[in-house]
Amino acid sequence: MLVVMKAQATPEQINAVCEHIEKLGFRPHPMPGAQRTAVGITGNQGQIDQGNLEELSGVAEVIRVTKPYKLVSRDVKEEDTVISFPGTNATIGGRDLAIVAGPCSIESREQAFAVAEQIAAAGAQFFRGGAYKPRTSPYMFQGLGEQALIIMAEVRDRFGLRIVTEAMDTENLDLVADYADVIQIGARNMQNYTLLKAVGRKRQPVLLKRGMSATLDELLMAAEYIMSEGNYQVILCERGVRTFIDHTRNTLDLSIVPAVHRLSHLPILVDPSHGTGKRNKVVPLARAAVAVGADGLMVEVHDQPDKALSDGAQSIYPEQFVQMMDEITQIAPVVHRNVPHGIEISEPVGGPVTGTARSAGR
Amino acid sequence: MLVVMKAQATPEQINAVCEHIEKLGFRPHPMPGAQRTAVGITGNQGQIDQGNLEELSGVAEVIRVTKPYKLVSRDVKEEDTVISFPGTNATIGGRDLAIVAGPCSIESREQAFAVAEQIAAAGAQFFRGGAYKPRTSPYMFQGLGEQALIIMAEVRDRFGLRIVTEAMDTENLDLVADYADVIQIGARNMQNYTLLKAVGRKRQPVLLKRGMSATLDELLMAAEYIMSEGNYQVILCERGVRTFIDHTRNTLDLSIVPAVHRLSHLPILVDPSHGTGKRNKVVPLARAAVAVGADGLMVEVHDQPDKALSDGAQSIYPEQFVQMMDEITQIAPVVHRNVPHGIEISEPVGGPVTGTARSAGR
Amino acid sequence: MLVVMKAQATPEQINAVCEHIEKLGFRPHPMPGAQRTAVGITGNQGQIDQGNLEELSGVAEVIRVTKPYKLVSRDVKEEDTVISFPGTNATIGGRDLAIVAGPCSIESREQAFAVAEQIAAAGAQFFRGGAYKPRTSPYMFQGLGEQALIIMAEVRDRFGLRIVTEAMDTENLDLVADYADVIQIGARNMQNYTLLKAVGRKRQPVLLKRGMSATLDELLMAAEYIMSEGNYQVILCERGVRTFIDHTRNTLDLSIVPAVHRLSHLPILVDPSHGTGKRNKVVPLARAAVAVGADGLMVEVHDQPDKALSDGAQSIYPEQFVQMMDEITQIAPVVHRNVPHGIEISEPVGGPVTGTARSAGR
Amino acid sequence: MLVVMKAQATPEQINAVCEHIEKLGFRPHPMPGAQRTAVGITGNQGQIDQGNLEELSGVAEVIRVTKPYKLVSRDVKEEDTVISFPGTNATIGGRDLAIVAGPCSIESREQAFAVAEQIAAAGAQFFRGGAYKPRTSPYMFQGLGEQALIIMAEVRDRFGLRIVTEAMDTENLDLVADYADVIQIGARNMQNYTLLKAVGRKRQPVLLKRGMSATLDELLMAAEYIMSEGNYQVILCERGVRTFIDHTRNTLDLSIVPAVHRLSHLPILVDPSHGTGKRNKVVPLARAAVAVGADGLMVEVHDQPDKALSDGAQSIYPEQFVQMMDEITQIAPVVHRNVPHGIEISEPVGGPVTGTARSAGR
Repeated sequence: MLVVMKAQATPEQINAVCEHIEKLGFRPHPMPGAQRTAVGITGNQGQIDQGNLEELSGVAEVIRVTKPYKLVSRDVKEEDTVISFPGTNATIGGRDLAIVAGPCSIESREQAFAVAEQIAAAGAQFFRGGAYKPRTSPYMFQGLGEQALIIMAEVRDRFGLRIVTEAMDTENLDLVADYADVIQIGARNMQNYTLLKAVGRKRQPVLLKRGMSATLDELLMAAEYIMSEGNYQVILCERGVRTFIDHTRNTLDLSIVPAVHRLSHLPILVDPSHGTGKRNKVVPLARAAVAVGADGLMVEVHDQPDKALSDGAQSIYPEQFVQMMDEITQIAPVVHRNVPHGIEISEPVGGPVTGTARSAGR
Repeated sequence: MLVVMKAQATPEQINAVCEHIEKLGFRPHPMPGAQRTAVGITGNQGQIDQGNLEELSGVAEVIRVTKPYKLVSRDVKEEDTVISFPGTNATIGGRDLAIVAGPCSIESREQAFAVAEQIAAAGAQFFRGGAYKPRTSPYMFQGLGEQALIIMAEVRDRFGLRIVTEAMDTENLDLVADYADVIQIGARNMQNYTLLKAVGRKRQPVLLKRGMSATLDELLMAAEYIMSEGNYQVILCERGVRTFIDHTRNTLDLSIVPAVHRLSHLPILVDPSHGTGKRNKVVPLARAAVAVGADGLMVEVHDQPDKALSDGAQSIYPEQFVQMMDEITQIAPVVHRNVPHGIEISEPVGGPVTGTARSAGR
Repeated sequence: MLVVMKAQATPEQINAVCEHIEKLGFRPHPMPGAQRTAVGITGNQGQIDQGNLEELSGVAEVIRVTKPYKLVSRDVKEEDTVISFPGTNATIGGRDLAIVAGPCSIESREQAFAVAEQIAAAGAQFFRGGAYKPRTSPYMFQGLGEQALIIMAEVRDRFGLRIVTEAMDTENLDLVADYADVIQIGARNMQNYTLLKAVGRKRQPVLLKRGMSATLDELLMAAEYIMSEGNYQVILCERGVRTFIDHTRNTLDLSIVPAVHRLSHLPILVDPSHGTGKRNKVVPLARAAVAVGADGLMVEVHDQPDKALSDGAQSIYPEQFVQMMDEITQIAPVVHRNVPHGIEISEPVGGPVTGTARSAGR
Repeated sequence: MLVVMKAQATPEQINAVCEHIEKLGFRPHPMPGAQRTAVGITGNQGQIDQGNLEELSGVAEVIRVTKPYKLVSRDVKEEDTVISFPGTNATIGGRDLAIVAGPCSIESREQAFAVAEQIAAAGAQFFRGGAYKPRTSPYMFQGLGEQALIIMAEVRDRFGLRIVTEAMDTENLDLVADYADVIQIGARNMQNYTLLKAVGRKRQPVLLKRGMSATLDELLMAAEYIMSEGNYQVILCERGVRTFIDHTRNTLDLSIVPAVHRLSHLPILVDPSHGTGKRNKVVPLARAAVAVGADGLMVEVHDQPDKALSDGAQSIYPEQFVQMMDEITQIAPVVHRNVPHGIEISEPVGGPVTGTARSAGR
């Protein structure tokens, strides 16, 4: 159910509608738009009576939403969701493409700084790196944990890059949230509903990776889980799905980009590193992702891929990253997008945490 | 790495080997066999020196295991793992097929008892029911939670049936473990490594369902995660995978049954309810599962499937369950198996918990 | 469109209806049933007027068939199609399971006779062998061609076994049809519509194998192509589909057996040899196929699988075939079926062709 | 096996090598390169003796090719295959992208001309249209047959566009070859080896579409079938594969483009119309295909898609085609390609056939 407010509705009227919804035992989700505010209603306590809502002042109309997802839908919010990062010019979902790059795992301070310096110079705004790694085998390298988070905070201090890193479970979520600018939910956890709800209660942007065999609807429903808890800053990410195809590790489904844009206001990035699993195919598919209309890219870059502790075969060299940036800069205008050149920090570095101390107030 | 002890090795010698392994910073897993004990070694701190181990008294030989999984492997333990339920004649993995049946979700005491009575009469030994339900949409029925666990404890008291129910996350794991005889890990959580490790620290049998697009290796590796924490009572479960096929909800891959038996000593059940998603296909595929050599079945039974709060379309009627039991009873001898008729309780009902009070000592 | 005749309709009335349909530019397909005859109408010249048909004498009612397939549908013919082989007790689709066995390719007279003797002794009624082999590479063994057909005719003469062999194209169809009792259409040709139509103009039974990624509807539509040309003796065959699964060569989809039986009157066999690609999984899945309700089995048997020119890894040894026959003989009664013990020839060997001379009258 | 000739080898020496190979019962395939000629050797009569070949004059070295395909391999021919169309500036595989456009089926002269005029004006060099249509149901529109071929010949005469049309079987191959500049082999026929060999004996370029569930190796092997008969003008085409994904009709696998370019010298086009099955996704994926490095595009354009007799839902409007051409013109330079603006005819229209008379000499 969706309550569409009149264009001239006052904040007080919107508040009154929200309170009324809460009184009925449901949850209101006010979604301000360019023209007017809509209030999504969620909850699984059964049907709500439409009549009374329509009589509240400031209400234009009440719409029954029949799709299984509501808050992610363009029916509820027509304008694209643009996520901004206060104190910087970085955005995700707007005209500027978001470029997220970095090693699969944080292996050492030296490695992280070496990669970060090069990707920052080439124009990336976001640094990705794994602190906690979900590995198929319990006997593989599982990440440096908090030590890696601290290293990434130092990368943030030093280069201004905003940090994207994965929370593997509710146990480490708080710690990850203390350090990350964007909390990543990995493909294997796309339907870990407990984690989705927990991250839905955080107030940081969430990067939600598509599951190995998730349909479009399931991806959108996973985003709905996060949003239904009140966190509307969700970024989707296509990273390849599992098919019979054997010349790549996964099959990158670029068609989901226009499909998401049609149904949802959420931005979607493409990860050609996991999407192909082969270094020589990352740059071509990065170009294709920009051409198809993705809101940005997430790529693995390693200065010594052959020595990487995880996913070396799909990490590109820094010089390939430079080439990629050059090529997508030329393609972006065709789809009315722009490749910004690096991040600009307009305020003294603040944000989640500095390299040495964790923020208290979260 | 695997240390094979001599047939006549004493418990003290085995202990000494384990202590030696721990001193080296690794983890020993003694696996007693019919003839001799083997000690699996796990840990990700690099290579262990083979020579010293071979010199310890009672050691027959030291074998390097090259497969990515160790503890699940038949190389490490040749005999089938048979899980028994103290105080009862029920087993999983032995000559008797394990029959797990019940509704998708526990909806009420009346519903649970109605179904339980009929499946017990027809010969099931295990009662399945969802207390916590992972649902694609946040707005769908999510299960009755602890109330459902209490109802299942009452079913256990009343009918003797052992309880199989899903733990969705580490938050509810302890509570589920208090009530369940077998803790189920759902398909969506097959690669939720945090949950796998947590359940690996429990001392109850775990039923691990295959993920939607998991390969055989990934399934075995997920089991390895549980075992590497010391819980060796793992039961695998095939429940269909996702393919292009559209005449069933999932594609039941019966070939994984002989494949698992070849590589691993762990038992594997088949769930033809999720595996097909269609009531009219459950019984035929249950017969096929027994014929292919499965160690048991897990089926959804509901007395009023049309009114089920979840998965009604794939739940069979109690009379279909009776027919299924009759048919598999005839097929089982062909594969040298037996369908036991219900559970026999040899001791006053004890076990995890009674309907009214939770066990303290866990 | 389907014209259902009255129970007491005379052959003349049925004829008159057929002629009327032809006059309208369509094609009539009389399908005699136990109670009454139905006449299917096919053709793509647009809609037919229902009113006039209903007025013809002997017509009970005229039904519009909305499914994309008609002649294959149970709506058109309620009784199971049972294909018989004149002069023998062999049938496909009836109470007796049809057992088709033999080598992948015919390699020599010695090999064919060695295998045939053993499978005949174990109870098979049909001998399969490739004369023309569709191979992925142009440089692989492509079959002995007509020489193989002659060898199979000798097998027929000697052991009474009916012959199943593949026609790869319209060029070799006539020759294959001269020798074969059942013409096989391979998985790669399931949508070779020209070949389907050509075999539809033959009057021998056709074994149609499911394509590598064919849906149930596509399989039924391929059968419809054959039937629309007037050949109603179609036998379907499940042989595994292509998925992400890597522990078997293909993924055997046993759920299609009850799905076919629900929608169509046509019989369906299962080929666990191609369906798994692994010798050690053939017998378990053969048992499962019988348990799920298949109308028969098609298995590759080779006396020296390691020396086979094609598909040796999935061919079972004759002694495994004996074991399989023994096991399915025990399972068949559960599904109200019977495993006949070999073929009985009630007439002097006639049929398509003898080993030395080709039949003239085709 | 591959015989690499010395750079200065004479035509006589090359001839002598070829004759020697033929005398040994094998087939020589001379492949002239920029620097030197290589002679591929095919045949399935077993191993060839390497020593004697190396002694022939002009031979630099003899290389054993271990891949299952030979003639398609870059090992055999390092330079890209560029197919040219005499009397025109059109090429496939060179710097210029090849743009193939037109309706799914030829429905009438008016329709064909209306579409052709618009795509020619927008810059296409090739006109595609179905004369013979492989349809899932025998009751669907199967194409206008020769009438459609004649219409396409008229389109050729009138607009200069080269004609791409499908041969469905060996029966209609000669007729199709009389009219077509490029003979298309459809996805359903990718492993119709009889048809592949027949088209391999033609001397026109062949467009080979990837099968619904073909792996990269299988696609290359299908091309090898054609080349092994002596026709080296093969163009591959990605058109989507079948997966679990349900938001598009097929899943377009753009990663196959760089994968083909790595292994083979053959050009590869992308068909985003079949690859998505949805009009609103064709242009985005056409852009992506160019960005990933495809050698051209094949798209369905219809002036009245809603009235199309086949595949209307995936045909784009002529104005969308104009937009697509504009966008890919901007993207092409990034991948060092060029979008030519239409075809230029340097000679009086000759070619396969004119609109009124069929060429005799084929």
